[in-house]
Amino acid sequence: MDERHARLALALTAYVGGALLARLLETFGSAEAALRAPARALARVPGIGPETVRALTSPDHEAAVARELRHMERLGVGLMVWGDAEYPENLRAIPSPPAVLTVKGRLEAGDRAAVAVVGARRATPYGQQVAARLARDLASRGITVVSGLAYGIDAAAHRGALEGRGRTLAVLGGGIGCLHPAGHRELADRIAACGAMLSEFPVMGRPLKANFPRRNRIISGLSLGVVVVEASLTSGALITARHGLEQGREVFAVPGPVTARQSQGCNRLLKSGAKLTESWEDVVAELAAQLRPGTGPASRGAPPPPPPLPPAGLLEPERRIYDLLADGPLPIDAIIGRLGLPPAAAASALVGLEMKGAISQRAGKVFERAIP
Amino acid sequence: MDERHARLALALTAYVGGALLARLLETFGSAEAALRAPARALARVPGIGPETVRALTSPDHEAAVARELRHMERLGVGLMVWGDAEYPENLRAIPSPPAVLTVKGRLEAGDRAAVAVVGARRATPYGQQVAARLARDLASRGITVVSGLAYGIDAAAHRGALEGRGRTLAVLGGGIGCLHPAGHRELADRIAACGAMLSEFPVMGRPLKANFPRRNRIISGLSLGVVVVEASLTSGALITARHGLEQGREVFAVPGPVTARQSQGCNRLLKSGAKLTESWEDVVAELAAQLRPGTGPASRGAPPPPPPLPPAGLLEPERRIYDLLADGPLPIDAIIGRLGLPPAAAASALVGLEMKGAISQRAGKVFERAIP
Repeated sequence: MDERHARLALALTAYVGGALLARLLETFGSAEAALRAPARALARVPGIGPETVRALTSPDHEAAVARELRHMERLGVGLMVWGDAEYPENLRAIPSPPAVLTVKGRLEAGDRAAVAVVGARRATPYGQQVAARLARDLASRGITVVSGLAYGIDAAAHRGALEGRGRTLAVLGGGIGCLHPAGHRELADRIAACGAMLSEFPVMGRPLKANFPRRNRIISGLSLGVVVVEASLTSGALITARHGLEQGREVFAVPGPVTARQSQGCNRLLKSGAKLTESWEDVVAELAAQLRPGTGPASRGAPPPPPPLPPAGLLEPERRIYDLLADGPLPIDAIIGRLGLPPAAAASALVGLEMKGAISQRAGKVFERAIP
Repeated sequence: MDERHARLALALTAYVGGALLARLLETFGSAEAALRAPARALARVPGIGPETVRALTSPDHEAAVARELRHMERLGVGLMVWGDAEYPENLRAIPSPPAVLTVKGRLEAGDRAAVAVVGARRATPYGQQVAARLARDLASRGITVVSGLAYGIDAAAHRGALEGRGRTLAVLGGGIGCLHPAGHRELADRIAACGAMLSEFPVMGRPLKANFPRRNRIISGLSLGVVVVEASLTSGALITARHGLEQGREVFAVPGPVTARQSQGCNRLLKSGAKLTESWEDVVAELAAQLRPGTGPASRGAPPPPPPLPPAGLLEPERRIYDLLADGPLPIDAIIGRLGLPPAAAASALVGLEMKGAISQRAGKVFERAIP
């Protein structure tokens, strides 16, 4: 058995996940050697139990791999093994990368510039509308939208990305040949045509409930940031946010009514420091450094990142006011007059600039740029 | 003319606000001396123009004061002059305190524990519901609710406070004898009975549009914190928030749908660092140090501030998990098992605790308290 198939065999072995795979490779030098290792040697690997040793030393690996490859061929599903050149760049360095990924569709180099848009299954019309708009706006600017093909927010995100004629990736909690929910067959086919469906589970594996929290680390791992659009306090989307945090990803949340159960998870994330997200611009502004030209979206026609203005994240008319103050301090009336702003809009922008530490106020409502 | 009436005379003089009053007192030693000062001396006061000098040296002060006092007597309105013992404590130290305040109703010492609840006139049913609930919950716990008697959020806040059988203050943009909006007559009477209406404008003064932004500094100045419930980007409530910021007050905002114009101002405040507010608990948690026993609400039966747990602001079940980790690190399964939490709720709380820096994670999903 060659090394790639040996890795597939390990991945098809119950109880072997990405972390254990890495340890087996480290201990035995290759998956192929691990499969030939005696039970005694396997039992000495940290974190390995007797059941895993039994599964690894069973004689069925060749047959299991052959069966899996037949299913994959029949379904037009490809294989990516951890260590392959085409294994997704973003996913390589997460704490527990999947040992193998089956793929229906195609991954592209530009998919490195990906953002996860996730949320509750039982979403409100508000949440679905925002998810679809956000995904459409991101995808149409060359950013790949990653989600989980579930009902509610996930489906709205995939559909929005397709509507924006962009790319979208769906990470499944079961095998690609055992689609869940079955009602998303047509959506899944469209995703495979404009992106990919991905799974770390055996192609015909059932979508077990226990798979989903684990699956969520792949959604965040493939992405530069995770946007939670709507989530109750018990929504799995919060698990995706937690994985994102562990993986060093930016976490975004869309605010919603404090009276809606479906927004409680997002409002909690916001309290905890997630970036408040009203539109695609909030996401792109925050990830600008990682979306740099030449890597991903810029090479597919995305807008250039905003100029390196200190500080980042200014809104309109905040930026105009900040620019105006480049020439020196000005009283509020002059700011209003020169920019032709309604006084309340100017006041609101000045609040924002002060809170961001971009400007400071002298006596007599005179504003100036803060010393950086 | 005695000193208090002389200060009233200055306040009744067009163009003399709190800042100029303070400067006149500083220059001439008393309001009474300022009224007797020759035009030459007045013209040397910084920031005083020829029109103000003319107004100050007119011979009509006695008559104006007498007329104002007659109106006040007829309407049952009291007078508080800057420097009086009964002048509101919170308001004394703001950058531009009103020279005089007319009062219908009564201020109490406990009104120091006040929170402003403000927002858009054209509020949505959502905003009005949240404002009323928040004001009711705060007022029923002994916190005085301050607002501006406008339609929409302001009226909902006053009504909520009354419903909570608590105290509420309304700060007007015109004279107390020239109620605006006129449709709020009955509400105004109830406020005067369970709190007070306040104004810095002459009793029969019209509610000029230009008065309102200025009036807003009194709303925030009377309060320990300002909660903006709903506000468009041009809402005057953002001016109140800005005044609050200038005055060192805590600024709170209630999140809302990103698709609603009426929530854009709040969502912007949240982006700029305002505290996300879902309920009265968020407000009280943040202001706990200022709401200490013996000063204000505690003496009127408010709940004691939360125990001094590092870090502040933990939600449930975050606090239970944090408490559980007092005995040492635990794997996620043990946390779930011992507290009987749904896995997703535990994961969500762990995100929150990590983001707040309260806990950290070791390999193998083991969590421990962060070193403070």
